[in-house]
Amino acid sequence: MAYFDNIPKVQYEGRHSDNPYAFKFYNPEEKIGGKTMEEILRFGVAYWHTFVADGTDPFGAGTAIRPWDHLKGMDLAKARVDASFEFYEKLGVPYFAFHDVDIAPEGDTLRESNKNLDEIVAMIKDYMKDSKVKLLWNTANMFTNRRWTHGAATSPNADVFAYAAAKVKKGLEVGKELGAENYVFWGGREGYESLLNTDLKFEQDNLARLFHMAIDYAKEIDFDAQFLIEPKPKEPTTHQYDFDVATGIGFLHQYGLQDHIKFNIEANHATLAGHTFEHELRVAREAGMLGSVDANQGDTLLGWDTDEFPTDLYSTTLAMYEILKNGGLGRGGLNFDAKVRRGSFEKEDLFHAHIAGMDAFAVGLIVAQKMIDDKFFENIIEERYETFNSEIGKKILANETNLKELEAHAIDLKDINIRSGQVEKIKARINQYLLNI
Amino acid sequence: MAYFDNIPKVQYEGRHSDNPYAFKFYNPEEKIGGKTMEEILRFGVAYWHTFVADGTDPFGAGTAIRPWDHLKGMDLAKARVDASFEFYEKLGVPYFAFHDVDIAPEGDTLRESNKNLDEIVAMIKDYMKDSKVKLLWNTANMFTNRRWTHGAATSPNADVFAYAAAKVKKGLEVGKELGAENYVFWGGREGYESLLNTDLKFEQDNLARLFHMAIDYAKEIDFDAQFLIEPKPKEPTTHQYDFDVATGIGFLHQYGLQDHIKFNIEANHATLAGHTFEHELRVAREAGMLGSVDANQGDTLLGWDTDEFPTDLYSTTLAMYEILKNGGLGRGGLNFDAKVRRGSFEKEDLFHAHIAGMDAFAVGLIVAQKMIDDKFFENIIEERYETFNSEIGKKILANETNLKELEAHAIDLKDINIRSGQVEKIKARINQYLLNI
Amino acid sequence: MAYFDNIPKVQYEGRHSDNPYAFKFYNPEEKIGGKTMEEILRFGVAYWHTFVADGTDPFGAGTAIRPWDHLKGMDLAKARVDASFEFYEKLGVPYFAFHDVDIAPEGDTLRESNKNLDEIVAMIKDYMKDSKVKLLWNTANMFTNRRWTHGAATSPNADVFAYAAAKVKKGLEVGKELGAENYVFWGGREGYESLLNTDLKFEQDNLARLFHMAIDYAKEIDFDAQFLIEPKPKEPTTHQYDFDVATGIGFLHQYGLQDHIKFNIEANHATLAGHTFEHELRVAREAGMLGSVDANQGDTLLGWDTDEFPTDLYSTTLAMYEILKNGGLGRGGLNFDAKVRRGSFEKEDLFHAHIAGMDAFAVGLIVAQKMIDDKFFENIIEERYETFNSEIGKKILANETNLKELEAHAIDLKDINIRSGQVEKIKARINQYLLNI
Amino acid sequence: MAYFDNIPKVQYEGRHSDNPYAFKFYNPEEKIGGKTMEEILRFGVAYWHTFVADGTDPFGAGTAIRPWDHLKGMDLAKARVDASFEFYEKLGVPYFAFHDVDIAPEGDTLRESNKNLDEIVAMIKDYMKDSKVKLLWNTANMFTNRRWTHGAATSPNADVFAYAAAKVKKGLEVGKELGAENYVFWGGREGYESLLNTDLKFEQDNLARLFHMAIDYAKEIDFDAQFLIEPKPKEPTTHQYDFDVATGIGFLHQYGLQDHIKFNIEANHATLAGHTFEHELRVAREAGMLGSVDANQGDTLLGWDTDEFPTDLYSTTLAMYEILKNGGLGRGGLNFDAKVRRGSFEKEDLFHAHIAGMDAFAVGLIVAQKMIDDKFFENIIEERYETFNSEIGKKILANETNLKELEAHAIDLKDINIRSGQVEKIKARINQYLLNI
Ligand SMILES: [Co+2]
Ligand SMILES: [Co+2]
Ligand SMILES: [Co+2]
Ligand SMILES: [Co+2]
Ligand SMILES: [Co+2]
Ligand SMILES: [Co+2]
Ligand SMILES: [Co+2]
Ligand SMILES: [Co+2]
Repeated sequence: MAYFDNIPKVQYEGRHSDNPYAFKFYNPEEKIGGKTMEEILRFGVAYWHTFVADGTDPFGAGTAIRPWDHLKGMDLAKARVDASFEFYEKLGVPYFAFHDVDIAPEGDTLRESNKNLDEIVAMIKDYMKDSKVKLLWNTANMFTNRRWTHGAATSPNADVFAYAAAKVKKGLEVGKELGAENYVFWGGREGYESLLNTDLKFEQDNLARLFHMAIDYAKEIDFDAQFLIEPKPKEPTTHQYDFDVATGIGFLHQYGLQDHIKFNIEANHATLAGHTFEHELRVAREAGMLGSVDANQGDTLLGWDTDEFPTDLYSTTLAMYEILKNGGLGRGGLNFDAKVRRGSFEKEDLFHAHIAGMDAFAVGLIVAQKMIDDKFFENIIEERYETFNSEIGKKILANETNLKELEAHAIDLKDINIRSGQVEKIKARINQYLLNI
Repeated sequence: MAYFDNIPKVQYEGRHSDNPYAFKFYNPEEKIGGKTMEEILRFGVAYWHTFVADGTDPFGAGTAIRPWDHLKGMDLAKARVDASFEFYEKLGVPYFAFHDVDIAPEGDTLRESNKNLDEIVAMIKDYMKDSKVKLLWNTANMFTNRRWTHGAATSPNADVFAYAAAKVKKGLEVGKELGAENYVFWGGREGYESLLNTDLKFEQDNLARLFHMAIDYAKEIDFDAQFLIEPKPKEPTTHQYDFDVATGIGFLHQYGLQDHIKFNIEANHATLAGHTFEHELRVAREAGMLGSVDANQGDTLLGWDTDEFPTDLYSTTLAMYEILKNGGLGRGGLNFDAKVRRGSFEKEDLFHAHIAGMDAFAVGLIVAQKMIDDKFFENIIEERYETFNSEIGKKILANETNLKELEAHAIDLKDINIRSGQVEKIKARINQYLLNI
Repeated sequence: MAYFDNIPKVQYEGRHSDNPYAFKFYNPEEKIGGKTMEEILRFGVAYWHTFVADGTDPFGAGTAIRPWDHLKGMDLAKARVDASFEFYEKLGVPYFAFHDVDIAPEGDTLRESNKNLDEIVAMIKDYMKDSKVKLLWNTANMFTNRRWTHGAATSPNADVFAYAAAKVKKGLEVGKELGAENYVFWGGREGYESLLNTDLKFEQDNLARLFHMAIDYAKEIDFDAQFLIEPKPKEPTTHQYDFDVATGIGFLHQYGLQDHIKFNIEANHATLAGHTFEHELRVAREAGMLGSVDANQGDTLLGWDTDEFPTDLYSTTLAMYEILKNGGLGRGGLNFDAKVRRGSFEKEDLFHAHIAGMDAFAVGLIVAQKMIDDKFFENIIEERYETFNSEIGKKILANETNLKELEAHAIDLKDINIRSGQVEKIKARINQYLLNI
Repeated sequence: MAYFDNIPKVQYEGRHSDNPYAFKFYNPEEKIGGKTMEEILRFGVAYWHTFVADGTDPFGAGTAIRPWDHLKGMDLAKARVDASFEFYEKLGVPYFAFHDVDIAPEGDTLRESNKNLDEIVAMIKDYMKDSKVKLLWNTANMFTNRRWTHGAATSPNADVFAYAAAKVKKGLEVGKELGAENYVFWGGREGYESLLNTDLKFEQDNLARLFHMAIDYAKEIDFDAQFLIEPKPKEPTTHQYDFDVATGIGFLHQYGLQDHIKFNIEANHATLAGHTFEHELRVAREAGMLGSVDANQGDTLLGWDTDEFPTDLYSTTLAMYEILKNGGLGRGGLNFDAKVRRGSFEKEDLFHAHIAGMDAFAVGLIVAQKMIDDKFFENIIEERYETFNSEIGKKILANETNLKELEAHAIDLKDINIRSGQVEKIKARINQYLLNI
């Protein structure tokens, strides 16, 4: 364990600290509304971005300088595991998440891949025995290998479907072995490059089939993780089937999956779909389907997924508001599905970036809890919709009226006293909340 | 009837005609796949854009020069009816569509508005007796008047909800009176300006309530039109609840409305949501919910709804392919929800624009039918998905397998022979289809 | 003077005040880096949005409730002047700005329009005698009237060009009369709807011609205001000729105007062009062409100009950093080219919105000055580019080397020690700066 | 020479051919307006996309199946050269283009890289002796290697600048050796990831310095190729300095480079910047700076550069119109900077895709020439701007009037007779032109 030995254990030092390796706002033991920050925020590290990604982009080679760069194959895989647990501990995060291929190299066959996986899983399990760190979720990568070119469950090739099914099976077994809280499906290539050669319904039917099989198998092996789908509208495909939360709700209902699967919501995927992060959280929350969060941020002036570490305090505040109103994240967490910029290639940047994100969500939590304590939004809503406390309003809400009765109510109405929405005043107050913490 | 007396009846003159008032491709009597173009295309004129809109935009006053510009109030309303029937006849379109406020001015109360409406409806009914023209759909405008500022069915004000309900009631009665084939809900302000002051679930619940009441009342008065919702992702609101077709499917399922309501799909709304027109048509078609079409086009380099007349032959071809595969539009039609550019302000432009759109869809129909006759897309699909005719493929499709069996199939697989998607070859063929008509 | 009598004079009460009619951060007398906030920020009120606009949008009628709603014509115009000076005083802003048609109704001819204008200008001049409020800039509205449909200086019609020229002449005279600090050209319809009917070079030549004539005439009448163009990429036209600052620089250079005209930069126009607000400010600043600012913000998930009041503290901070590095705004100011949301229709919202914007820029100023005092960005830059202090680096910067010499330097180089860009660390520090004011 | 032996020489077979390896519209010998299609279109193959790229994307590994996949290093480089000349000949294209690293592997030092390059350049030169194929342009790849992370000429590191300079020097020498018609600068990483750590002016100054050095050195070695910059607004950086043509014009003027450098315009870069392809061509043409074209197309519903093969006939028609009005491309060409989709991974797809693109531009050429023969656009423009033939119009165009005289002309004008822009009618005619070839 000597990958990050120049970096101290990251501690809370308060808002005025200028130690880059200290938290300024995230104080794990501090209680907010009765629970500690650590319990509420449930931060997770994304294995792929932090221990595997090297800064490659479509126009350039890797840039990252990592202490394990000289290794290959299983040696590399093991070094990363070592490094990861050192990292979790130094940073003080309670969770991590991975795809199968993040932790172990693929072999020539799935049998060989699984053998590699088993070895690393055993090593991780060993580490977990002596660690507080738990597995937030795992998943199967079904988008990188050439075989997934046209999709996995939605591939036009039946062998590819079978291969995907087998990967999911193993993923569920691994999840059970490591006590994963959730199992996530991000539909990497589950969509289409072009509608011109695509049987959309055929593919969506097959996607639903795989989900049903996974649910059945999890039951069979007594793996009680929460299943999650992670919407994204596009990229890598032209159209991803799990476009956004609302689309996902429709899909789950159409295929009878609505009681078995919730959502893992990523901020950058929200904005790529034309929504705010808080919108997607709200839609899932109101449907009782907010499962977990991929905490990152995008650049809304760019058209691709940048997976930046979250630092926008407006966004973390409104996200934490939704999460608190949800009664917390349950078995979910705030997984930093975020990568250091290609130009932030030093290992130290991994710490800077996570600290930035953890502090940003801690601030969001503090502000959101203050707002809830003050009934800030609740008062706005109560006042704004108060006419529904009238007789006709109550009837509407109780489904006890009809067009005729409502026409009688409205037919001679002259002045309807609608109110100002006062958005500017609300935004000024939010700035005050933020600056006064 | 002398509003367009300088313009002749528009006739089909063939592809080489240089008469701007002739169709070059739309030949109403010509049979395509057993039906006439007129029967298949079911073109409709949008009353609002063609007889009411004046070219006003957010930065400028009206520009349109119309023969009825000197009139006001009910006189204006009546002149527009006269002009509209002259227009339908000269252009040879079989359908029209309107919002209540397009045809009759609002009064101080809904009672007065309805009185005005009744008078104009009677006048329209008279015209229809002697005309082949039918009402594709009508609807209630619930977005222009100040009272709808924060929504209609989704307003935070109960009186506004009641008013909306009363307008829908009248709309259904008018539809019945005029024999409308459909009743459309475009959620003009059914969305939010800001999530900061919005109870999203409250508002969506109320939206569903209004739909249920409308369905009940239509049944009560024996009005058997098809109900349609028209998705749009944004504009005028920041977020419209009926974002796109997939969102609509989810909404309809969540509220038990999926058997009562289909979709009216607008091309420009599709692209605003990040989809192609054909994508939205496909999603609706595969769900058995393709009701009708608002035929227009947008400018994908602009971020607002331009409602241009459709002239892109790629788009009309792929749209007509979806429509033909749907077995046609049923009770729906191709409603030109399209406005002449603000700079195309002469009344002659109304003809040029409709002719452009009708010819573009006629070309789309011809090309799409040729492709279907050749099984062009069908052959691509059949070949591309053929591995599902294998034993394991059939089991997957029949829901007769599971993760274990599929793992056994995949565990030692080495070479999976996926095929090229050949999109470039397909696109070259489509150009050939288009140029060889 | 009784338009806003229910509203008190807005005073600074500090960050914990919950008086909605108080500033929490804007303290006009407070000195920041040697000057008062009032001197640095030079806030201006936009006459059009605040005293004229009524909330109309492309899908709906006006919503605003204003004390002058019952008036018409010149009476309305005069009431607005009365109200405006009451508003400036209550809010404590030092500047205002207007288009000609904002302050006086148009007549049947330009002669009549000018007569109306003269009367109101005299009235405004009277007010200004007893007021500290000054005119930041005025301009001619050359986009609303039907005659400008295809452009003003870029119209294909020569009479329209002449009319535009005459309006600019009057605008310069009015500016001189009222002591305007600047004269702004926002090219409302100076662009094209479609390239298909446009002679782009002809139109741009004419645009430059009008600018040259204006410069000549200002000199002739001894009007020494700073000329400014205001870039916007699109809307209302499909393509605006003054797309962004970089485009404007090219245009001004091509037509020999670069020494006569600077930029008025609007935040929302920046984001519509795909840039951040600070990017546009930086490009203009580095070219020595940062003239003035239209202070607002957009919604980057929407595709049109929303002209929201600025509340995003990241944006105001980075904007104020550019402005401070520019040595201030010179004769320019922070003009709130911002409108209350259509749903914020009460007159009180005009105050809430301006207070929100003024406080947001005051916070930005405080944070930016703190960063400058700490040489926060300066240190980052100095360290990041330090290799240019090497021998070869100095030669490059002094233009004293060439490809051959540089090849000799590079040909056997093995390790080039580039540094991490550390963006995440920088962003975390910015959050600390913001939260620690 | 046996890389594509299953594929015949591609010949023109006419519009009804169903041979996928035949041209349907591109007939190299056919004369259009006095020149052959081959002479006008000057097609080029992009070495990187066609012989190097393997289908890797940010979410997946390579997919391409190429006959040279088993080779490595210089053997691979040589095999690609062999294959490329076989490809050019079978396809019948007159030009190719490459980056240095496309054709030869990099060594540990630039000296070694150049040695590899020399060997391959000699091999290419040999091939060119017996071939009609010429080098359209070459360039130095200064974006892939890690050293370019923060830019090349715009890097904050002086050694990196020197390295870039040395690469450009070698590039010019290679260009001279192979008789290149042009030398292209695409500013791959010449922009910023974040403005927060960027000295924008420092970087742009350095970019201009490198251009000046390159111009000087080309003169010194008597290399008379046309220099071209290739605008792109974003990707891989957040902001590319050569944002679009208009930005480039400003940059070249600011740094005194406007007489030495023209533009290489890529269709997909145009749309990423919010412009149409034809807009960018027009802006460059009107400035006398249209140098060459990267012929591809994007997907305007996606936010990244897809570099698709061009098949949209509207786009190729309007592009060819600009090119014909430019008097052709001069030393430039139509370089297919286009890649087969990741799913089109067979070598046959390379042919299908190029044939699709060549036919699409041939159609564009035929249609555009027909329009020019008919003075289609010229008549529209002449009629639309005809009021500038009036006395006042002529004075405006001759710069012989001023604001006073124009005011006198306009002051009592009542009716200005602007004309309809007739965009819909124009679009209908364009469809007719297209379908009637
Ligand atoms: Co994610
Ligand atoms: Co992402
Ligand atoms: Co519509
Ligand atoms: Co629309
Ligand atoms: Co502005
Ligand atoms: Co604006
Ligand atoms: Co290119
Ligand atoms: Co490109």
